[in-house]
Amino acid sequence: MPCQMMAASICIPRAVSAQPATTFPSWKSFRERRTDLQPGIPRSVHMENLQNEYLFPEIFMRESEHARKNPHAKVIKLGIGDTTEPIPNIITSAMVEKAHALSTVDGYTGYGLEQGNWELRKAIAERLYRNSGVKENEVFVSDGAQCDISRIQMLLASNSTVAVQDPTFPAYVDSSVIMGRAGRFQAETQKYRNIVYMKCVPENNFFPDLSSTPRADVIFFCSPNNPTGNAATRQQLKQLVDFAKENGSIIIYDSAYAAFISDESPRSIFEIPGAKEVAIEISSFSKFAGFTGVRLGWTVVPEQLLYSNGYPVIKDYNRLVCTSFNGASNIVQAGGLACLSDEGLKALRKTVNYYKENAKILVDTFESLGLKVYGGKNAPYVWVHFPGRDSWDVFNKILQRTDIVTVPGIGFGPGGEGFIRVSAFGRRDKILEASTRLRNFL
Amino acid sequence: MPCQMMAASICIPRAVSAQPATTFPSWKSFRERRTDLQPGIPRSVHMENLQNEYLFPEIFMRESEHARKNPHAKVIKLGIGDTTEPIPNIITSAMVEKAHALSTVDGYTGYGLEQGNWELRKAIAERLYRNSGVKENEVFVSDGAQCDISRIQMLLASNSTVAVQDPTFPAYVDSSVIMGRAGRFQAETQKYRNIVYMKCVPENNFFPDLSSTPRADVIFFCSPNNPTGNAATRQQLKQLVDFAKENGSIIIYDSAYAAFISDESPRSIFEIPGAKEVAIEISSFSKFAGFTGVRLGWTVVPEQLLYSNGYPVIKDYNRLVCTSFNGASNIVQAGGLACLSDEGLKALRKTVNYYKENAKILVDTFESLGLKVYGGKNAPYVWVHFPGRDSWDVFNKILQRTDIVTVPGIGFGPGGEGFIRVSAFGRRDKILEASTRLRNFL
Repeated sequence: MPCQMMAASICIPRAVSAQPATTFPSWKSFRERRTDLQPGIPRSVHMENLQNEYLFPEIFMRESEHARKNPHAKVIKLGIGDTTEPIPNIITSAMVEKAHALSTVDGYTGYGLEQGNWELRKAIAERLYRNSGVKENEVFVSDGAQCDISRIQMLLASNSTVAVQDPTFPAYVDSSVIMGRAGRFQAETQKYRNIVYMKCVPENNFFPDLSSTPRADVIFFCSPNNPTGNAATRQQLKQLVDFAKENGSIIIYDSAYAAFISDESPRSIFEIPGAKEVAIEISSFSKFAGFTGVRLGWTVVPEQLLYSNGYPVIKDYNRLVCTSFNGASNIVQAGGLACLSDEGLKALRKTVNYYKENAKILVDTFESLGLKVYGGKNAPYVWVHFPGRDSWDVFNKILQRTDIVTVPGIGFGPGGEGFIRVSAFGRRDKILEASTRLRNFL
Repeated sequence: MPCQMMAASICIPRAVSAQPATTFPSWKSFRERRTDLQPGIPRSVHMENLQNEYLFPEIFMRESEHARKNPHAKVIKLGIGDTTEPIPNIITSAMVEKAHALSTVDGYTGYGLEQGNWELRKAIAERLYRNSGVKENEVFVSDGAQCDISRIQMLLASNSTVAVQDPTFPAYVDSSVIMGRAGRFQAETQKYRNIVYMKCVPENNFFPDLSSTPRADVIFFCSPNNPTGNAATRQQLKQLVDFAKENGSIIIYDSAYAAFISDESPRSIFEIPGAKEVAIEISSFSKFAGFTGVRLGWTVVPEQLLYSNGYPVIKDYNRLVCTSFNGASNIVQAGGLACLSDEGLKALRKTVNYYKENAKILVDTFESLGLKVYGGKNAPYVWVHFPGRDSWDVFNKILQRTDIVTVPGIGFGPGGEGFIRVSAFGRRDKILEASTRLRNFL
């Protein structure tokens, strides 16, 4: 990894506070030498290194553009994985109650703990990690998994190397680029040079060949995977944990879709013995409770996870959270607690099943068209194979012919080329209408 | 600034994805050479470089410790600047309504825009920046100013240098340390080596002597200042803007306490002509609307602000927000919009005045004790001078003698030594009781 000073294209003279300002070249004198520059600080070379816009705003832009050009089109959005079902009343009632209470002297509360309300941390540990012995002090409540990905990036040593599944949720790669861990983008491979891409394709049952995977400090692993919809088996996750142990790596395990698992696949990396020594888990209320707009997530940092010098990672993560975050909204945390009550969990189970029935309809639809379809069983995403095709091209064709928005597989990494991701989040009537359009026009 | 590879105390062999794993030394073979190390990745040298715990959790710990040792003590908390007054009903009603709506088919909404709801961005621009021409697309809604400070740190080029007021809100320095911009901590000066500390003391009317201030890429400037309570004048802010222009620096202006300004001091840096070319402003609903636990803030990035290569900063900030953040809670944003209605602003004005009356009581109390007191007029903080005294010692004495929690000035930087910060947030009866205790026991 090159020294960052060397990588910077523009070098501004640094100030040293111990000496008076007059001994340093001023910006003016610097400008006299560099007439091509305006005033202002140099742009981050890492930000400059980012390719394209972030995937989902890009999809949103294309969708808006299509709607603008086709004002009478009834666009069905199966692109961004956005929840559509109302939140069960027991959960919204808890948020209503908390919001009300804030207008009363007795019910008002100010700052909460940065790590989250103790009751909620306890409920997450007890209700969602019953079989894996996660303790409440290891749970850090947040405003969502995406935000925690960036916080974890801030936690890591600056020269850390990163591995990701290919394809995968783009925030792992993009946040790595922003932090300067990715190296240059290479157009011919569509990969960042310093990132390890672990190919997950039908040929390897969507689980990487670890025997040929180079070591990285940090392995981002999402299961059930977004976008392929594949959940890793217990045996596979055991392999992954062993691989991390052998290599002295940390796994950042994203279980945001765990509630959608139908089979015996683990819902948490911590179901694997020994995982607490090598893994952090990030997760979210977004998809399992319809909190995409409400914003709530959490990260589990086990006490057993240590840096190579023996220092506990949880201590640094706690310090980081206290510095860079100020707790999730108290109203929203009240909703999170209600999600984890018996009644809340029961109501949410229905919503999850509703989306899974949607997924079944979409799987059947694409299969009836003779296409090979993956996912949709342990995840709300259907991963449709168009072998040899350009995925943006498929995306555009589907949009033009059926007014249905999907996501091109290439958006999730080069391993996604030839696929499109179809979201099963949606009202049933829209899913059925989408099915009809796809059967008729594709 | 040294190359980060050189600064790291432990060097792990890097993986290069283009070559097979077997050509790299494994962790095992590496461990054979370094028997002092456990498995795992090295700790971030930047995290290791942080001194002490983050200030406010530290205060909270000391307060809890005192309460444990003195179970009958009636502790009054004037430490952490935590709001205590109920949120006006018009605002909580808007949040109640939104929370209710989320349980209905027609009222449910999922992901919002990462930058915030357009209506709220528009209201912030129109209601809070009427005189400075900020446009709605320049406003990025967030979950709070503290979180935005870290997001801005991620935006900056990795070798950026930082200047801060001394004393100041500790998150600017701590987040700079985490990102590796601070250099080593020097015990003798109580400063980080690469940070420019701009001393703000009674002798210079709490405004730095810019003629002797070294250049830095980024100047964090908080006005009204936390902790001194001092608001910079128009003339001073003009000097600051000129200084940034001359030096090609960016000002990160924190106006979280702007609502407390009583005099003609600007409430936004953008009231200064030309500031849009050199400044970003971060701000918050926390203190002006009692949203400390509800969580809502914003950042203004003007279109005119450019990097030295001419690229607009707003474009990178937008990209960063889309990657590292997923929008503030929709329920909370509904509350934010209600804050900015005529009725909301009117109700909040009352709450702000209530805290300002508290501040007056505290100022009078300390002055009656013969102490020199600053702040409290344009800010909810009272900055009390104990010349020549150790501020942790004063903090401890006040806590032991009066059961009142304050904050020692040194927690805000070496320039805060000899001062304590007293928060004017609190119920009136507590403030009066605190006044009595202070008059009797100090």
